[in-house]
Amino acid sequence: MPVLKPDQFPFRTELAVRDYECDMEGIVNNAVYQNYLEHARHLYLRSRGVDFASLIREGVHLVVVRAELDYLSPLRSGDGFLVGVRVERLTKLRGVFHQAVFRKPEFVPVLRSQIVGASLNAEGRPAPCSALDEIFPDSQFGHGV
Amino acid sequence: MPVLKPDQFPFRTELAVRDYECDMEGIVNNAVYQNYLEHARHLYLRSRGVDFASLIREGVHLVVVRAELDYLSPLRSGDGFLVGVRVERLTKLRGVFHQAVFRKPEFVPVLRSQIVGASLNAEGRPAPCSALDEIFPDSQFGHGV
Amino acid sequence: MPVLKPDQFPFRTELAVRDYECDMEGIVNNAVYQNYLEHARHLYLRSRGVDFASLIREGVHLVVVRAELDYLSPLRSGDGFLVGVRVERLTKLRGVFHQAVFRKPEFVPVLRSQIVGASLNAEGRPAPCSALDEIFPDSQFGHGV
Amino acid sequence: MPVLKPDQFPFRTELAVRDYECDMEGIVNNAVYQNYLEHARHLYLRSRGVDFASLIREGVHLVVVRAELDYLSPLRSGDGFLVGVRVERLTKLRGVFHQAVFRKPEFVPVLRSQIVGASLNAEGRPAPCSALDEIFPDSQFGHGV
Repeated sequence: MPVLKPDQFPFRTELAVRDYECDMEGIVNNAVYQNYLEHARHLYLRSRGVDFASLIREGVHLVVVRAELDYLSPLRSGDGFLVGVRVERLTKLRGVFHQAVFRKPEFVPVLRSQIVGASLNAEGRPAPCSALDEIFPDSQFGHGV
Repeated sequence: MPVLKPDQFPFRTELAVRDYECDMEGIVNNAVYQNYLEHARHLYLRSRGVDFASLIREGVHLVVVRAELDYLSPLRSGDGFLVGVRVERLTKLRGVFHQAVFRKPEFVPVLRSQIVGASLNAEGRPAPCSALDEIFPDSQFGHGV
Repeated sequence: MPVLKPDQFPFRTELAVRDYECDMEGIVNNAVYQNYLEHARHLYLRSRGVDFASLIREGVHLVVVRAELDYLSPLRSGDGFLVGVRVERLTKLRGVFHQAVFRKPEFVPVLRSQIVGASLNAEGRPAPCSALDEIFPDSQFGHGV
Repeated sequence: MPVLKPDQFPFRTELAVRDYECDMEGIVNNAVYQNYLEHARHLYLRSRGVDFASLIREGVHLVVVRAELDYLSPLRSGDGFLVGVRVERLTKLRGVFHQAVFRKPEFVPVLRSQIVGASLNAEGRPAPCSALDEIFPDSQFGHGV
């Protein structure tokens, strides 16, 4: 597997650890990384002209159907970090967000993840939505669901 | 893949959704499931005589190195649910928690996950610890890390 | 001020600390108590036949306008605790939840709080709602807002 | 009471709402504001040369003993905001953080709060610590606890 580097992720955002995100071990709690990843995805969406709150009001639900996270190194109080996002269309109804977290200033890999998203209609059934084309532009993809 | 059922998980705990865990979509936020899973694991640990807070004070760190989560169905405000835990020793230094969430009262599968844990010493290096033998009793495992 | 005791709170619910709620100091983070208090209030509401999620769908918003919290003693990993609720109607549009947290098994006072709630309509303006009469039954109150 | 304005707070930090901080009502959950306030206080501490994580390792515990929060207006998905901090020494062992949240870009007041902090030693007893002099510089204060 190639070395994980920030420039493999076209969309990047910078954040800093907040102390309440650290647990008894003095490190950022595992669940909090999913918060960071979601926040970075939503910022990416907004950069593509897609507003998550507006989508919900329109009855479109972009949901996470699968998450894989590899914890490589901990973040601690005072750490600044970068979250990277790279998208890949999987099918007409699904795409994957490749995401990673890097600790500043040396950009040490902290977390690698793949988050699979799908679009559902108001009834909770898989349904195509134009937002997916905005989120996963120019992507090649195969068939199936 | 066999149908997911509560009785496949020897350790089970019951919880209920708290409204602050629900997000703008009116469903439990993705990251919160990692909170539920961690809480269930720590209750399982305690049932095996292993106290997470005590371990930290002794310089033993049980950390999550990988998490896989499949989101099958959402939890909503008012839902009661069950979290199941089944353990499997992978190596001398690693084990996996097979975990699932079921919505009451019909025990509809909500989430399936595999959480891989490892033990580190105070310097952050992989190191065996007796707690692993308590957590993963009578497990068969191979070699390597 | 009289000694704080559980029997001063007609509605009570029992919870247990979850380890992810503890911060670097090994104690439950200050903000988390507001989560506990909200959860206990919503359970109290449900016990009065008022469902918070349903209210939102009907366009009624019960909001917190003021919170006062006195932190008396910390909760730690492994602690069980009780959250008590006592209600008092203040005006036609406002009521106060007197709430306290007690650590088990001796019911040591952990937190004392007063949470003032108000009802708003869908436009965010103060507006009476029948739910307030359910939540604050038989209460005496004066006039004004 | 004078109108609340950002320039009444000498220390200010800018943040943005993260979608997972919003609840079913589509607004930032009440408890989350305490997270924002804590984060701003810890940044203020760091600006004064006081590192919260280091203090804990030295056995000094700066704890919140009382919080008062007035919720004036909600924050929503996409909002940027400013958190202001102004300190006041109360006694040798206590100080208060006057804090407010303003929604950008018009700096609409969102929250006003007073957070009373105290210093405890490793045994949990009130004890003076030099960090308090750094955090509350040049403050006048009276006597008592």
